[in-house]
Amino acid sequence: MVVSPEVSSDRRITFRILAPKAEAVRLNGGDIPGNGPRPLTKNDEGVWELTVGPVDAGAYRYTFDVDGVAVIDPRSPSTSESNNNTWSVVYVPGSDLSDNKDVPHGAVASVHYTSTALGRPRRMHVYTPPGYESGQDKYPVFYLLHGASDSDDSWISVGRANFILDNLIAAEKAKPMIVVMPAGHTASFGFGPPGAGGRPNFAANEFQDDFLKDLRPYVEKHYRVLADRSNRAIAGLSMGGGQTISIAMERPADFAYVGVFSSGLFQRNLGDWEKEHEAQLADSAAKEGLKLLSFTTGSEDFLMPRTRDTVELFKKHDYKPVFKETSGGHTWLNWRAYLGEFAPQLFR
Amino acid sequence: MVVSPEVSSDRRITFRILAPKAEAVRLNGGDIPGNGPRPLTKNDEGVWELTVGPVDAGAYRYTFDVDGVAVIDPRSPSTSESNNNTWSVVYVPGSDLSDNKDVPHGAVASVHYTSTALGRPRRMHVYTPPGYESGQDKYPVFYLLHGASDSDDSWISVGRANFILDNLIAAEKAKPMIVVMPAGHTASFGFGPPGAGGRPNFAANEFQDDFLKDLRPYVEKHYRVLADRSNRAIAGLSMGGGQTISIAMERPADFAYVGVFSSGLFQRNLGDWEKEHEAQLADSAAKEGLKLLSFTTGSEDFLMPRTRDTVELFKKHDYKPVFKETSGGHTWLNWRAYLGEFAPQLFR
Repeated sequence: MVVSPEVSSDRRITFRILAPKAEAVRLNGGDIPGNGPRPLTKNDEGVWELTVGPVDAGAYRYTFDVDGVAVIDPRSPSTSESNNNTWSVVYVPGSDLSDNKDVPHGAVASVHYTSTALGRPRRMHVYTPPGYESGQDKYPVFYLLHGASDSDDSWISVGRANFILDNLIAAEKAKPMIVVMPAGHTASFGFGPPGAGGRPNFAANEFQDDFLKDLRPYVEKHYRVLADRSNRAIAGLSMGGGQTISIAMERPADFAYVGVFSSGLFQRNLGDWEKEHEAQLADSAAKEGLKLLSFTTGSEDFLMPRTRDTVELFKKHDYKPVFKETSGGHTWLNWRAYLGEFAPQLFR
Repeated sequence: MVVSPEVSSDRRITFRILAPKAEAVRLNGGDIPGNGPRPLTKNDEGVWELTVGPVDAGAYRYTFDVDGVAVIDPRSPSTSESNNNTWSVVYVPGSDLSDNKDVPHGAVASVHYTSTALGRPRRMHVYTPPGYESGQDKYPVFYLLHGASDSDDSWISVGRANFILDNLIAAEKAKPMIVVMPAGHTASFGFGPPGAGGRPNFAANEFQDDFLKDLRPYVEKHYRVLADRSNRAIAGLSMGGGQTISIAMERPADFAYVGVFSSGLFQRNLGDWEKEHEAQLADSAAKEGLKLLSFTTGSEDFLMPRTRDTVELFKKHDYKPVFKETSGGHTWLNWRAYLGEFAPQLFR
């Protein structure tokens, strides 16, 4: 029987797929180090195989390309959902941050709500900390946004946000909190050429309407939350980082902690955005209550220039953004680490 | 751009996959009516297509077989997890029972716990009814078990248990309750030949140990539950129906409602089981507190003989099992309907 994926104790991953008739099989490895799709090699029984690594501990998405068809691993039930497709996911243990350890665990709920802004049902994921379901305490709320092409499932299935919070809370490095993971896309998303039905659809305004009119009120009504500014945080990665700034500046007195991972403002022209938000940028009361405005981006990240420009814009308007440059690029390896550094700073 | 699956208003489903190099593509349609895998037809652009139906409203699992490789739909993010693999899933709307309607929704949590019985982390799914997360009420608990080869995700992703409960509760046909969905397998499951690593592994005792020592105590500690017999129910389908009887008879004074869907006792020799459980079968106090012992199986189900034999065994020992024969076979179409009939009878 074909076993795949197989993770060795030295953190190598072996991928296998039975495809006797295929001409070529490649691994689309997402964050797995190595450039582009890598070929697998076929044995006499028609099983294709590739070993990669050693890799850093963490979660890795992948699919097989079998003669041009994207195929999740037929031998593994572990998946991670994006906006338009689903990936296989393999977890390589060895991380104090993201391993499933023997500590008290929170619960991750899939929550369906009606969006009056969009006129249709929507879904979010909600992490409640250990003890929530039996207790009566109220908790601060951290809104955590995914990146372009992903879904409200992504911060869990590949981002390991639940295990990261479990581990930080158990070590008393983070306060117990509710983490709300919205669905950042409001339609199908694609990177194809314009007119071919594959145009990027960031739909920032639709998402923002849904967030402000429906999602956040739903959370504040249906969960035991501390509903003041000092107990409300928001952060996001890539597209979600852009949405984070938009939402935080639309409600400048609402969020005390704002985190931007591998991103900056997403508007094409920062000067236009600056003019449109003159009033909010000058609001001193809003600035005083902002306990943290944090930007973190990897040195190899293609969004580094946009990150720097956005940091400079906020500095110019007397904000005190904290900017940290890490190693690496636009990867979940970084985003898990960024969450691990951001969450401990919240609600202090 | 290839669209798949496409559901028409007359409840037909069109499946499409771009696979220009493939020699043959077939649909493995699970519960979709029709015998065995059905071939798709290729067009000039290399897109294979098949339309099925009209089908009954409900959720259908499927994969494509592309030259012998099982492939989930590359154009759809909707999946359903089994024990060893993941399926694509398509929902055909039009059911008052299982549609995602504009009613108050419960939440479905993925919950990780430590199994002392198995010495490793395990996962369950927990449905909490509308209002649970903000309220203080205690609720009855219904344990709902999946069938062989499936996972704790299956009653949600294809069984639609959350939407079924949402709809029944909104219509005041069912009492608000917590529904706990355990993982019924404790190891990899397969139907292959003995010795080839593919032997069926029902691992009933391992599961039962985990259920009794860890899962149920975890639920009763971490959730606001009404922890007396009249507020505790258990049901399961196929293998889960066998596990249901085993657990209920191992703790004959613990469950007031017991439901067996498309199943009976799973032990090879019913006479042996009868002898081993003489004491429990004779326990009159246990019998008196049992408000419902229900068996439901379709007329075309291969487990009908086993269902009938098990019903007769309980009758012989002065139990009053309710037996209902429905149309259809061993399908999720039936199991969703059975849940829709069983849940309203609970906790009355």
